[in-house]
Amino acid sequence: MWSELAPVGRDGRSGGYNRFAWTREDATLREWFAGECARRGLDLTEDRFGNQWAWWGDPDAQRPGVVIGSHLDSVPDGGAYDGPLGVVSALAALDALRATGVQPTVPVGVVSFADEEGARFGVACIGSRVVTGAMTPERALGLRDQDGVTMAEALRAAGRDPATVGPDPDTLRRVGTFVELHVEQGRGLADLDRPVAVGTAIWPHGRWRLDLVGQANHAGTTRLEDRDDPMLRLAAAILTARSAAADRGCVATIGRTRVVPGGVNAIPSQVTAWLDARGPDAEDVHGVVEAVARECGIRPAAEPVCESWTPQTSFDADLAARLSRLLDDAPLLGTGAGHDAGILSNAGVPTAMLFVRNPTGVSHAPDEHASVADCHAGVDALVAVVRELARG
Amino acid sequence: MWSELAPVGRDGRSGGYNRFAWTREDATLREWFAGECARRGLDLTEDRFGNQWAWWGDPDAQRPGVVIGSHLDSVPDGGAYDGPLGVVSALAALDALRATGVQPTVPVGVVSFADEEGARFGVACIGSRVVTGAMTPERALGLRDQDGVTMAEALRAAGRDPATVGPDPDTLRRVGTFVELHVEQGRGLADLDRPVAVGTAIWPHGRWRLDLVGQANHAGTTRLEDRDDPMLRLAAAILTARSAAADRGCVATIGRTRVVPGGVNAIPSQVTAWLDARGPDAEDVHGVVEAVARECGIRPAAEPVCESWTPQTSFDADLAARLSRLLDDAPLLGTGAGHDAGILSNAGVPTAMLFVRNPTGVSHAPDEHASVADCHAGVDALVAVVRELARG
Repeated sequence: MWSELAPVGRDGRSGGYNRFAWTREDATLREWFAGECARRGLDLTEDRFGNQWAWWGDPDAQRPGVVIGSHLDSVPDGGAYDGPLGVVSALAALDALRATGVQPTVPVGVVSFADEEGARFGVACIGSRVVTGAMTPERALGLRDQDGVTMAEALRAAGRDPATVGPDPDTLRRVGTFVELHVEQGRGLADLDRPVAVGTAIWPHGRWRLDLVGQANHAGTTRLEDRDDPMLRLAAAILTARSAAADRGCVATIGRTRVVPGGVNAIPSQVTAWLDARGPDAEDVHGVVEAVARECGIRPAAEPVCESWTPQTSFDADLAARLSRLLDDAPLLGTGAGHDAGILSNAGVPTAMLFVRNPTGVSHAPDEHASVADCHAGVDALVAVVRELARG
Repeated sequence: MWSELAPVGRDGRSGGYNRFAWTREDATLREWFAGECARRGLDLTEDRFGNQWAWWGDPDAQRPGVVIGSHLDSVPDGGAYDGPLGVVSALAALDALRATGVQPTVPVGVVSFADEEGARFGVACIGSRVVTGAMTPERALGLRDQDGVTMAEALRAAGRDPATVGPDPDTLRRVGTFVELHVEQGRGLADLDRPVAVGTAIWPHGRWRLDLVGQANHAGTTRLEDRDDPMLRLAAAILTARSAAADRGCVATIGRTRVVPGGVNAIPSQVTAWLDARGPDAEDVHGVVEAVARECGIRPAAEPVCESWTPQTSFDADLAARLSRLLDDAPLLGTGAGHDAGILSNAGVPTAMLFVRNPTGVSHAPDEHASVADCHAGVDALVAVVRELARG
């Protein structure tokens, strides 16, 4: 399966992936998933956002199903494993289960969520947020990409009907348990020398937009003392994000900026910076954002704009403990990364995560990696988990 | 004339102008200039870059001509006056001269230089640099815009032949004196309460590209101590540019950046920043660039890349003194802004500049302004200057 996925959206120079929602690459990935499901005789349905659900067994049978899966889209210049490892492993686990002749007592589903990374429209996990009701369809459809295209327009351009987008309780009712397998995005397993972990929690995390306003002027003729240069505010924001996060045990990142007008010989009129902040404690995360806003001199009229916020997510503790025991006392790990599993968990779906070792910890970058042996260990873990959960 | 120019390349929201080389807007401006010249019965020629020269009288007569003019392109979201004021004033001055029935003893030319701002390809005054031999055609044609399009490709797309681009001594030979009128880009005249000044010199100035390399990684899961975030280097570059310039009596600006990959939830792998630095003393300007490179930790293998450098330009001192006397002892002013007049002066053409008062000093921004009365004073000054110089 990997070999067909490998070239889709790959940058020939960096080796990284650019797979953004509702683009040509995204359509190719959706077709790939549909083809894999058809080849296995699974019934494929789409929910009211376009997340793809494939079922082995009748999903409307009396007992709700066990669902495994992840997403196929990527961040800009992302790695090969973040997302696709969970989808490919889910299909491989299903193949392995069938090969043993097991007949599960509940339906088994494989899901591929749409627009998990939020690379195009700036908000992550849109697919799971919309169907669980965590985000209104109006908010989602009105989000704009960097070219000003709204998600509603992007959906129409991809041949889809934005009017169908909305919460989808009928789809969620089918999900008795959701288990997302994901490449680890840190070095927890590498430090412990173990291939697979069970997730416990996702740190509270959010994204804020900082609109830093100044006064455009000529770079050569404007005296330093006459300048109101918003780049100085950007510098303060970058440095404060780092120091305030360090003070509070959080992480904070400015990974995207927009400088207007962006002339080499012009003092900018405005700089927009996006701040990603996360940490074990929500109060501390907000403290980081407030410190950044204060130090970069955001005017009272322009507070940081919160573009997304996900509170602390604790996965089902009993389920995590049960899966850890099942998997030879697999370590329990928390993470700073958001996932669709977190959104489903917050919506009341019993949810677990499995992490597969990442030797360098690098993620959201071309160097992201997992060994073949560890990927196989992940599939084996998924097989064991589905057997256990489908046993009831 | 202004009313026809006003809408070309204007941003409806900011009121600023986007008139970049070899775009549709640029073609409209070139046609506008050709039309104005045709209406006046002037002979229009293009030199080996595409700068437009219109002649009243035979430019190949025994004595070389007096040429006035400026440029029509703009920086991103630029003002209405920077460039167009000099072209429109030149045409208006020519009309006024003819209305008086004067018959000049030397040919009078009006020039509109191409790609003065360098907004698209990153290097300013390309038109004058190429025809004077200050830049090789190979270097100019190989410059790329932000979409990776080379100037050679842009020329071809605009229906032009890049093979003709090169130094043009035949065109320069026709220019006995060049006088560029320009809106002032500072508050010198406003402080002195005078409408028009004569230029004395242009500060040495240059542009450098800083390639700040880091390690892409996940914004949520990478510990602060494991990060190699190039945004911290950008912050250091911005702050050092300001402090090092202040220490040395220079000005320095970072007005354009590129953050790769630019994901909200990814630590960037690379940030590119463009540094514009100028000052009365070339040594000091280089000192600013060195301080920035040192403080932002540019690796030894990647020195700041100098994309352009223009040494101190002193306009013809005798000519400046003569014009100042002619214009009621107009004040003599230096400037930090580069101009085609500086390139021609460095190429040995006797050159002068006239500045028109800018009440706020704001330039390279939509708020750039000159009063109607001051614009008329500029035209009157230009008329007097051409009469004087055409008298021999």
